[in-house]
Order: sequence, then C-alpha cells, then structure tokens
Amino acid sequence: MFKQQYEEYLRLVEQYLDDLPFEKNLICQSMNYSLLGGGKRVRPVLALACVELVGGRPEDFVREAAALELLHTYSLIHDDLPSMDNDDFRRGKLANHKVFGEAAAILTGDALLTYSFELLAQSLAIPSDRQLRVIRETAQAAGWQGMIGGQILDTLGNGQENTLSSIKLIHEKKTGALLIASARLGAILGGGTEIEIVKISEYASFLGLAFQIKDDILDISGESEVLGKSLGSDEKLAKATYTSILGIEGAKDHLYKTITSAKEIIGYFGTSAEFLSSLADYIAERNS
Amino acid sequence: MFKQQYEEYLRLVEQYLDDLPFEKNLICQSMNYSLLGGGKRVRPVLALACVELVGGRPEDFVREAAALELLHTYSLIHDDLPSMDNDDFRRGKLANHKVFGEAAAILTGDALLTYSFELLAQSLAIPSDRQLRVIRETAQAAGWQGMIGGQILDTLGNGQENTLSSIKLIHEKKTGALLIASARLGAILGGGTEIEIVKISEYASFLGLAFQIKDDILDISGESEVLGKSLGSDEKLAKATYTSILGIEGAKDHLYKTITSAKEIIGYFGTSAEFLSSLADYIAERNS
Repeated sequence: MFKQQYEEYLRLVEQYLDDLPFEKNLICQSMNYSLLGGGKRVRPVLALACVELVGGRPEDFVREAAALELLHTYSLIHDDLPSMDNDDFRRGKLANHKVFGEAAAILTGDALLTYSFELLAQSLAIPSDRQLRVIRETAQAAGWQGMIGGQILDTLGNGQENTLSSIKLIHEKKTGALLIASARLGAILGGGTEIEIVKISEYASFLGLAFQIKDDILDISGESEVLGKSLGSDEKLAKATYTSILGIEGAKDHLYKTITSAKEIIGYFGTSAEFLSSLADYIAERNS
Repeated sequence: MFKQQYEEYLRLVEQYLDDLPFEKNLICQSMNYSLLGGGKRVRPVLALACVELVGGRPEDFVREAAALELLHTYSLIHDDLPSMDNDDFRRGKLANHKVFGEAAAILTGDALLTYSFELLAQSLAIPSDRQLRVIRETAQAAGWQGMIGGQILDTLGNGQENTLSSIKLIHEKKTGALLIASARLGAILGGGTEIEIVKISEYASFLGLAFQIKDDILDISGESEVLGKSLGSDEKLAKATYTSILGIEGAKDHLYKTITSAKEIIGYFGTSAEFLSSLADYIAERNS
C-alpha cells in the first residue's frame, strides 16, 4: 500500500521532470543530467502526500512539488563542488562538475534554483495569496536563514564545537528547513487549515532530523555504491556527525525515538496519515 | 533635474539595502560586502522610474526594486569566480571570493539569488496576480533562457564564432534580459497598461544593448580604477566584444544609434519620459 502510493507520487514527479521543456544546449543537458539522475524524490513525494492529507488533489500540484526537487538538486550540485565538499560522486554517478566542469556546474545550480521559482510562480487555480505564501516560505527555507545558512555552518564552521546541539542546528537548517517547507507547500496549496499546517510542520521537522541521523549512519556503515556518494566523506573531513558524537548504537536509538515522535504527531490525522507514517519508517529503514 | 531624480531613486534603494535585516554572521557579512559596495543601481533605478512613468508611487515598490540589485549582485559574484571569469576586482574593491573564499562566495551568490525571490513574494497592496507575473517574468529573465544562458554562452561558448550576431545574442541574454525585466517589473507593479509595458520593454531592450556596447568601450579605453574591475579582462580572455568586431569608432557609432532608438521609443510617453530619456544618455556617457 505504502509502496504503491509512493510509486504513484513518484510517477507524477518523474513524468513532470522528464517533460520539462529544456532545449538541447549545454546548460539544459547539464540540468537534466543531475535532475534525472534518480534519487528518492523525498521532498516532492512528501509535498504531494501532504496535499492529499489535507484533501487536495496531488495531480494539481505536481509542478510545484517538482520545483522542490530542482531546489534540492541545485544544492547537491553546489555542495559537491571542489571548493565545498569536493565530492566526485552523487546518486551513483559522477558529480555534475566532474562531467560538465566547475563553471557549468555553478551555473547549472544557479539555473535550477532560479527555474524553481519560475515554476512556483506559474498560474494555478487557487487563491494567489496562498501561492505567494508558498513562494515566500520556500525561499526563506532555502535561503541564508535555512538551507544555505546550514551549508555555510557545515562547510565553513568546522573546528569549532562539535556538540550535539551544534550539529542539530546545522541539520535543522541544511536538511530540515527544506523538508519542512516541502510539507508546508503541500499543506498550504492543498488548502489545509492553520492547525493542520502546524501539525504537518512538526511531523516534517522530526522527519528531517530522522533523515539526517540515518544519513550519518549510512555514511559510515553503508556501501559507497548503494549510497551513491563517496563513502565516509563527512568523516574524512572530520565533520561532526550523529554517529561521531553518539556512537552507532546511540544514533540508532536517537533515530528510533525521532521516528516515533514523527508518527505520534501525524497520528492527529487518523487513518489518512497512514502513508506519512509509513514514510517515516521508510526514511529510517532505507539503504541509500 | 535628471541627477536630482536619480539621487532620489538611489536614496530609496540604498536606504532599503542598508536596512536589510541581516544578522552578524559570515554569510550576511559577505552579502553586505558585495551588496553595499556601491554600484550605479541601474536596475532598481530603472524599475522605480518605470513605476512612476505609468503613474505608480516609487516609494511603494522599493523592496521589489532592491530585489533586482540582489539578483544583479549575485550574478557578479558568481561571474568573478576563478572557474568563471576569474576577476579579482569588482566595483573598485576585491571580488567577494578574494575576501571570503570561493565556497563562501558561491553560497553568498546563492543566498542573494534566493533572497531576491523572498523579497519579491512579500505582501503588497496590489493584486496578487500582478505580483506573481513579476516573479515569473523576473525568474525567466534571470534563468537559463536569460541571464544564466548568456553567461553560459559567454564563459563556455568561446572559440566558436565571434560575429556581431553571436555577441548580440550573448548580451541580449546576459545583460539585456534582466534590464528588460527590471523595466517591466516597474511597469507591471505600477499598474501600466499592456501597451505601456510593451513600449517600456522595447526601450529597455535598446538600453541594455547600449549598456553593453559602452561596457566594451570602457573595458579597453577606461581606466581600471574608474571601472572598478581588472582592465581589459574580456580582451585578455579573447572574448568577442563590440569593439573587437566593430572597432572603437564603429562601436561608438553603434552606441549613438542605439541610444537614439531608445529615446525615440520612450518618447511615446511625452514629457513624463524625460528621466528615462536622460537615463539613456547617462548610460552612454558614463565613465564607469
């Protein structure tokens, strides 16, 4: 049931991404290379599931959900650059800059970021105020107070304090902010009430935390081919991780508690929350 | 009169930029460093003048005009990077990456780009549809079909054909698209009619062309200190320029004709167009 519904959301997103009206030029090839490289599409799937949870039709907001994947993909391309995390592999294949060069990779990221807002601002059959709110919130979550702020702390904040609270702050910004924005995008576009939007945000906040703890666990115990990026790249750079601070068992315990909190909160929606409850398990149990 | 009005628009923009609610952290310092480094603020000034031309109040749209300067500034930071144009100076001081490092410069550009859309999506006392149109058009002008597309051609399209039509295409995208979008932003937010928006676009298109021709002339004849960037950096990289193809005199002649066309078109608005007519002269006569 969970798998079937995930596939259905995924099909909507993949089809939209496949059909983007890109031309046959360098930057479009480069955008496609990174965008169509697979990936779990967690952010758009989360958004579409939240649309449905509050009573909207997922089919009506595929473009907006896909815009979240563009934002996520741009951040991966820039994070992998030599002057940043210097990763050669991403999603099981060569990183964008290893194929297209550094200049093209920077511009490709810029283009995906910009295009995501172009997509979010297209005409929709809902009140424009709601759409403007989504653009505003998404930009804030992706910006210097959110995702980019987290990447700054992560890339340039090393050698300072590697405490649990400092890595929590980094990941709340770097991973959490956009996941929360994805869930809120779905809830707002789908017409959710303010209380529904708050519940969904709280759920997504725990989901983001779980996501990062699991990433850290996979990074040291997973296989490079499965994870699709260089094994132990964070450890290599001596970055603080949940596993380096809590140990593997401590991190797994923290993960379990986080998933439990996520499921408790989303239980507010009763049986309609089944997919999102399973999504929390999926995040914790994934191998890549 | 022109100077006085320019100063008034400039005052609005500078004050807004000065008052941005940035925190005292690295990325905000870096954003401020590049954003507050002076500059002619041509894009926001153009936008505010177009607001006024169609009967709106410039004071009501300073935030949206300032967002254009954020977009422009991000593009300068990324263009100056070592893997791109590799310029050490910008606006008379060290380029962002020479002060904050390459990683921070990339993220600072990303942050300014993202923040510009956050600013464009704030609440305004005009119909939301109009605002969404501005976001859509601005994103398109700044994206892979516009400014970024031009930068890709400019950075990676060398060694191909250096003809007048090929550099015209590059600059229509790289410089022209955002200037046109700036004028349209003002015209649309200010409540202009469709015919007014078209006239203003045509004017801005010639203004953009004039801007680039003048830049090429300054790049070989100006002084590095005045221009604020490394002298002859484009020539150095053997890029096609208006001067390399038409010669200095030919380029000056082309500039004069372009300015004349811009002024003819904006004459549609009668005496109200005085400022924009003078702005065209200013673009042609500037020394930096």
